[in-house]
Amino acid sequence: MQKLVTFKEFTTITRSASIDTRQHGWRAGRLQTLIQLDLPVPRTVALSFETVHGIAAGRMPDVERILSAFGGAPLVSVRPSSQEARWGGPGAVLNIGMNDARYEDMVTTLGEAAASALYLRFIQTYAVQVSHLDDDLFDSPDTPSRTAVETALREYEIETEDYFPQNPAEQLVGVLRSMARAWESTSARLLRQARGAPAEAGLGLVVQEMALGVGADESGSGVMQFIDPVTGQSQITGRYLGQSQGRDALVDRERALYLTRDPRGPSLEELCPDIFDRLVQYGERCRTTLRDEAQVEFTIHEGDLAILDAIPVIRSAQAAVRVVVGLAEDNIISRHEALSRIPPRALNEVLHPRIDPETPRTRIVQGIAASPGAAAGKLVFSSTTAQAMAAQDEACILAKRETTPEDVRGMHAARGILTERGGTTSHAAVIARGLGVPCVVGASSVTIDRRSRTMTTADGTIYKEGEIVTLDGTAGEVLKGAVAMVAAGRDDAFESFLGWADEVRDIDVRVNADTPEDAALARRFGADGIGLCRTEHMFFAEDRLTAMREMIFADLPEDRADALAQLLPMQRADFTQIFRIMAGKPVCIRLFDPPLHEFLPHDRQGIIELAEALNRPVSDVQRRIDALTEFNPMLGLRGVRLGLTLPEIYDMQARAIFEAALDASEGGAPVVPEIMIPLVSACREVEIVKARVEAISAAVQTERRGKLTYRLGVMVETPRAALKAGEIAAHCEFLSFGTNDLTQMTYGLSRDDAGRFMGAYVRQGVFSEDPFLSLDTDGVGELLQIGAARGRAARPDLTLSICGEHGGNSESIAFCRGEGFDYVSCSPYRVPLARLAAAQSALKSAYGT
Amino acid sequence: MQKLVTFKEFTTITRSASIDTRQHGWRAGRLQTLIQLDLPVPRTVALSFETVHGIAAGRMPDVERILSAFGGAPLVSVRPSSQEARWGGPGAVLNIGMNDARYEDMVTTLGEAAASALYLRFIQTYAVQVSHLDDDLFDSPDTPSRTAVETALREYEIETEDYFPQNPAEQLVGVLRSMARAWESTSARLLRQARGAPAEAGLGLVVQEMALGVGADESGSGVMQFIDPVTGQSQITGRYLGQSQGRDALVDRERALYLTRDPRGPSLEELCPDIFDRLVQYGERCRTTLRDEAQVEFTIHEGDLAILDAIPVIRSAQAAVRVVVGLAEDNIISRHEALSRIPPRALNEVLHPRIDPETPRTRIVQGIAASPGAAAGKLVFSSTTAQAMAAQDEACILAKRETTPEDVRGMHAARGILTERGGTTSHAAVIARGLGVPCVVGASSVTIDRRSRTMTTADGTIYKEGEIVTLDGTAGEVLKGAVAMVAAGRDDAFESFLGWADEVRDIDVRVNADTPEDAALARRFGADGIGLCRTEHMFFAEDRLTAMREMIFADLPEDRADALAQLLPMQRADFTQIFRIMAGKPVCIRLFDPPLHEFLPHDRQGIIELAEALNRPVSDVQRRIDALTEFNPMLGLRGVRLGLTLPEIYDMQARAIFEAALDASEGGAPVVPEIMIPLVSACREVEIVKARVEAISAAVQTERRGKLTYRLGVMVETPRAALKAGEIAAHCEFLSFGTNDLTQMTYGLSRDDAGRFMGAYVRQGVFSEDPFLSLDTDGVGELLQIGAARGRAARPDLTLSICGEHGGNSESIAFCRGEGFDYVSCSPYRVPLARLAAAQSALKSAYGT
Repeated sequence: MQKLVTFKEFTTITRSASIDTRQHGWRAGRLQTLIQLDLPVPRTVALSFETVHGIAAGRMPDVERILSAFGGAPLVSVRPSSQEARWGGPGAVLNIGMNDARYEDMVTTLGEAAASALYLRFIQTYAVQVSHLDDDLFDSPDTPSRTAVETALREYEIETEDYFPQNPAEQLVGVLRSMARAWESTSARLLRQARGAPAEAGLGLVVQEMALGVGADESGSGVMQFIDPVTGQSQITGRYLGQSQGRDALVDRERALYLTRDPRGPSLEELCPDIFDRLVQYGERCRTTLRDEAQVEFTIHEGDLAILDAIPVIRSAQAAVRVVVGLAEDNIISRHEALSRIPPRALNEVLHPRIDPETPRTRIVQGIAASPGAAAGKLVFSSTTAQAMAAQDEACILAKRETTPEDVRGMHAARGILTERGGTTSHAAVIARGLGVPCVVGASSVTIDRRSRTMTTADGTIYKEGEIVTLDGTAGEVLKGAVAMVAAGRDDAFESFLGWADEVRDIDVRVNADTPEDAALARRFGADGIGLCRTEHMFFAEDRLTAMREMIFADLPEDRADALAQLLPMQRADFTQIFRIMAGKPVCIRLFDPPLHEFLPHDRQGIIELAEALNRPVSDVQRRIDALTEFNPMLGLRGVRLGLTLPEIYDMQARAIFEAALDASEGGAPVVPEIMIPLVSACREVEIVKARVEAISAAVQTERRGKLTYRLGVMVETPRAALKAGEIAAHCEFLSFGTNDLTQMTYGLSRDDAGRFMGAYVRQGVFSEDPFLSLDTDGVGELLQIGAARGRAARPDLTLSICGEHGGNSESIAFCRGEGFDYVSCSPYRVPLARLAAAQSALKSAYGT
Repeated sequence: MQKLVTFKEFTTITRSASIDTRQHGWRAGRLQTLIQLDLPVPRTVALSFETVHGIAAGRMPDVERILSAFGGAPLVSVRPSSQEARWGGPGAVLNIGMNDARYEDMVTTLGEAAASALYLRFIQTYAVQVSHLDDDLFDSPDTPSRTAVETALREYEIETEDYFPQNPAEQLVGVLRSMARAWESTSARLLRQARGAPAEAGLGLVVQEMALGVGADESGSGVMQFIDPVTGQSQITGRYLGQSQGRDALVDRERALYLTRDPRGPSLEELCPDIFDRLVQYGERCRTTLRDEAQVEFTIHEGDLAILDAIPVIRSAQAAVRVVVGLAEDNIISRHEALSRIPPRALNEVLHPRIDPETPRTRIVQGIAASPGAAAGKLVFSSTTAQAMAAQDEACILAKRETTPEDVRGMHAARGILTERGGTTSHAAVIARGLGVPCVVGASSVTIDRRSRTMTTADGTIYKEGEIVTLDGTAGEVLKGAVAMVAAGRDDAFESFLGWADEVRDIDVRVNADTPEDAALARRFGADGIGLCRTEHMFFAEDRLTAMREMIFADLPEDRADALAQLLPMQRADFTQIFRIMAGKPVCIRLFDPPLHEFLPHDRQGIIELAEALNRPVSDVQRRIDALTEFNPMLGLRGVRLGLTLPEIYDMQARAIFEAALDASEGGAPVVPEIMIPLVSACREVEIVKARVEAISAAVQTERRGKLTYRLGVMVETPRAALKAGEIAAHCEFLSFGTNDLTQMTYGLSRDDAGRFMGAYVRQGVFSEDPFLSLDTDGVGELLQIGAARGRAARPDLTLSICGEHGGNSESIAFCRGEGFDYVSCSPYRVPLARLAAAQSALKSAYGT
């Protein structure tokens, strides 16, 4: 017999009601569970996604029937219930049903202050959320009174040219419609997308009978949770406030009571020991049954305890990791589930460094701590600039009066965010926490001027775009200059967690590390080796730059060789150190890549100084700079092209690598360096470099009477190299896809120049995602597949990998795993993320979603 | 029984000797044919490629045996015999066997002058070609004498510290070795590669008994040919000089006789009517049998006629076409063979415009006319600059003191070549003729200074790099400024020839034409339509540039629309004219492509003027220019990205196209415009533009009450568009591969920046050819194949084509034909070449090579 699916506009939640989180949302499901756990939950009705979607489209359910589900004529609240708690939703509305008549009744039964508080709360919420009036119209009075109620009602009438609705059904219609529509707005859509929800995600709503929290006898409300939301350590935290509703206890902290006995003041434990004990019991029941740490929202109404909700504790990423580790250790969830529960990018937050507490701080701005962590960078005043700087790998702090959804991409690009306006729930704060970017909001003592690109602090000091500051999102401060930091958040739970990830994952995670410092960091982050060591960064240090420039200005190969000879010992020393730090783990060194003009000054002063240093006429220096200028440096004389044009450079580098390998092998296992050729587009390029490298290897072995083994590979960055991977693989041991450049060339799109339209492109769905953040599996990915297949066909033992930003992106990692790659390589701070993403991908393959 | 292949070091050429041009070269084969035709050819011995290759490697054949083949002790000559005549070879050496003893004998029998001439010629040739002495050491005396001989011998002894070899065998060894080695030299290798020979092509040599041409009775030498080598018209041309050898008659024109009766002086026809008649007879026999126009080299020795050789007439491309047309019309060869005989690139020469004879000329340089045709362009003084300018589509004239093989690529890039030194056989002259580039050499009155980048003319005027001049390679002059020209060389034979090509070919040839002028030219060149009409060039005209800049500076969409409204009538007028000129042939218009900053000034003065014109502060203009600057403009905000960012531009263009189509359709067949979207990388881009274009089409049809049909297509320029061709083709009617940009992106290589290393890359064989000249069928070609296959799978009636420089390259055309493309599109002057190349490709498919 076929099952009849009947459409229910609403469902009263009971132990056995048919509630499905995929239809009614997480909150409806959660409330049903609490009911099943015998918690004293007030009567609740759930509206499905379908119903709410219908409301937004103009199909209002029968609200009289909904209200009648509550019997009598109670006050009710409406709260959002999206499929996943983290996807958010519109704000709750309490005290629906309040009107003039009921107010008069309550003045009699509860007194003017309590009745006025209840009515005022409803009028204000309704005016702002339903009638879209300005928040400022309704200042909260210190003591709610009849006068305040009358003023609020008058304001409402003036602004709307209508009476405040008195009919509870009409009120509910307004609330449901505004919440349903708010969910469909563009900004809400963007916000939930930023949180990982699909744009078309549904919203459910729950209508719940109010437990008033105001009244005779002990009445009030509070929240209780069982961990420290920052560290995740076990600890009862929360507040209780007499004669209050909702989350008032968290707002009015001065008057609120502690929950456990506390030397700082009175506590609920002392005031109502029975109720306290019941709450603790309920908390334990929740943890075991809900398999998570919950924040319990409770109301005491005239001595009776009501549990309104138990929502997941809002927690830092560090705490999130500790919670799942604790749940797994208590056998409440499996390790695999623990791994699956943490979105990889959340780990970024744990890894953000903190300001070193030992360092002196020069505070220039004090604001509200809105998102933890600290970062230093150049001040910028627009999202576009932030994106442009990020594209050039420059750290920046984005300072804005306030942020809007248009800024989300800029905020993603910034290392830290500062706003003049707003509070902990402002757009900037919410988004920054979601992104794990340190953020300070409400820095009202400074003036941020986007036009003049300046920030003026309280004492009149002007900070211009480009000045370096440090933002401390944990303390809510901005400090002058770049302040010393310590790596942060990684505690024992974090290490256990990543250890579990390593047990599960089946693809290596290497790191992009250019210096011995990077290498040390990489080891701490548990990288399986170095996948990309960019040697050119080594040339930018002051003492090396001079030799580099002499090399560029050398007219004869001999002079060039002389200049390079100065660089050889420096490179060798760097490599030796890196090999030693990596202690036998593989190190893949990419030969010199950038165009030479990157090493030359571009301003007048720099050119004059260079002319002096080289003892050449300025005109000569200028001419050489002009000659090296390129129309499209990305597509110019760089990488292997430079290696073939000025072969002395690669010769020097190969020598430095081989000598360092021998030095680092002394007294230990032999180091087997990996040498990678950049920007290859033709097989012959590989053959030529290979022959020269081989010759250098032979020479070094003879000179040093040592035995060397090394592996040669190619960085596949041009579409042509991917197409010709079969031929190329015949001459090398590994292929590493440089997906940054490969994406640029496949799209014909420079990352540095895409900023001006990428935002609009992603918003309009022209590109489903920014291909520089998440690998374009469809287009660029096909080149990876072609390259991998042809490479492996030519050489079955070929090592395959990707390096570049995509190496730290979960979807991209899953793609590479699926294609049978041997490793991904990403920047040091992304290594933990990549380890987790790799583990989750493996779990997904083994057990499905 | 197995055939024994025996290696013959040399073969005496007889009617029945076993001579194979693939082993002995064209000249050996040709001489055998002449013997078979009963022409009086002196005894000749052929040395095979294998023998000559052996000589270069040190394995000298038995020269005594070679000499004995001639009986007695005659004088002999050695001449090169490569597989194809046009591949060249080292210069001939005459009079081998001359020595002191024989000289004394000849003084007695022939007189001092004749004997001295014979000996001096040999000493000089031997000294320069075999002993590599400086040419200048041996000035030719007006009357050869014993003193001159003695001086020459002494010079030889001083320079070589050795006696001049007296033994004929030793002399022959020296000659054979030097010729064999010269063929293997790098410069010879490059030269023959420029002429289409494989680098490892072999050289044969022929050793021939000398017919002396000096002696008692009528003696002398001459050459006779039966066409005008410039126009190809039938006409006996050539010269005869008494008491001379080799090609002396062509050098000493003042003393030489005409062949036919001529009012200007005495003729061979009058002097020796019998011999003249025999020569004409031989000439006719040669034409019919050799199936080509030959230049007959003859010697009269004491009244006896000897035919030394009959080589293909060196002819202009115009003549070459007329010759094959004549041969085909006389049924000596088939039309197909006629088509196959002309290398497509030779047609370039025919098409080069000539200076308009009606125009006044200001001559600034007089030199030697070395390669016909005329061209105007900017003066440049290095091959690198020439290549850089060509990459930017800028015409330039390359001026050098002299050219070397290193300059070949620069000469290819230049529109004309001027050298201070050298004669008609100098490197510059030979290469220029091969390339079909107009050339003037030996302009000894000017001083060309590469360092200061100036050319100083006889009257002391200094011309700097960048100044525009016109080079007339037909007259041997350089003129001031850009002089008016007329299209040239296309005569009735040329038109017949291309008509035959059209009958054979099975792929359309369209033209890249941006203006009504281009369109008119394209029709004259027989294009099947316009394959690429770049609309942005229309915006660079003075009056339009201002509106364009206003558009760029508009802050609001309305202001932008206003500025574009000014451009609309201009674009519409252009399109209307183009549609009318093309008279129903298809016209494919590409929507706006370049980045906006190309339209802004970049020098201080230009910025100030623009600020005045726009009535804005300079700082404002500067800021906008800075904001639009891109790191990699090739990969930036251009093409469809601009079309989506500022949709008003495409809207205006679509409107102009549709209105023009309706205007041009009036009173004739309806025009069906083709609209092409540039730089697509995602399918959604096409969908969005398509929707807007469709809306404009509907609006115009309503407003104008007309019916419009149009075709929408995509320019496939990014690797991603090629990969996604299946999805894209679902939304459009045609795909045109923009192989210029596609090559840049597939290689990750900017054409503008490749100049600095491309030469070295091709020379070293890193790239087998410059992929911007000849389509990289291997890499870029695979993307074309993928795109074509996926496109056709999605839409079987999809039109496929390429546009860009490769559309005019023979190999690239053959590739596109092979892949079933519908058309190629190339620049106007390449259309005839493309028509021929398409025909040759079709013939090759039908009949094999």
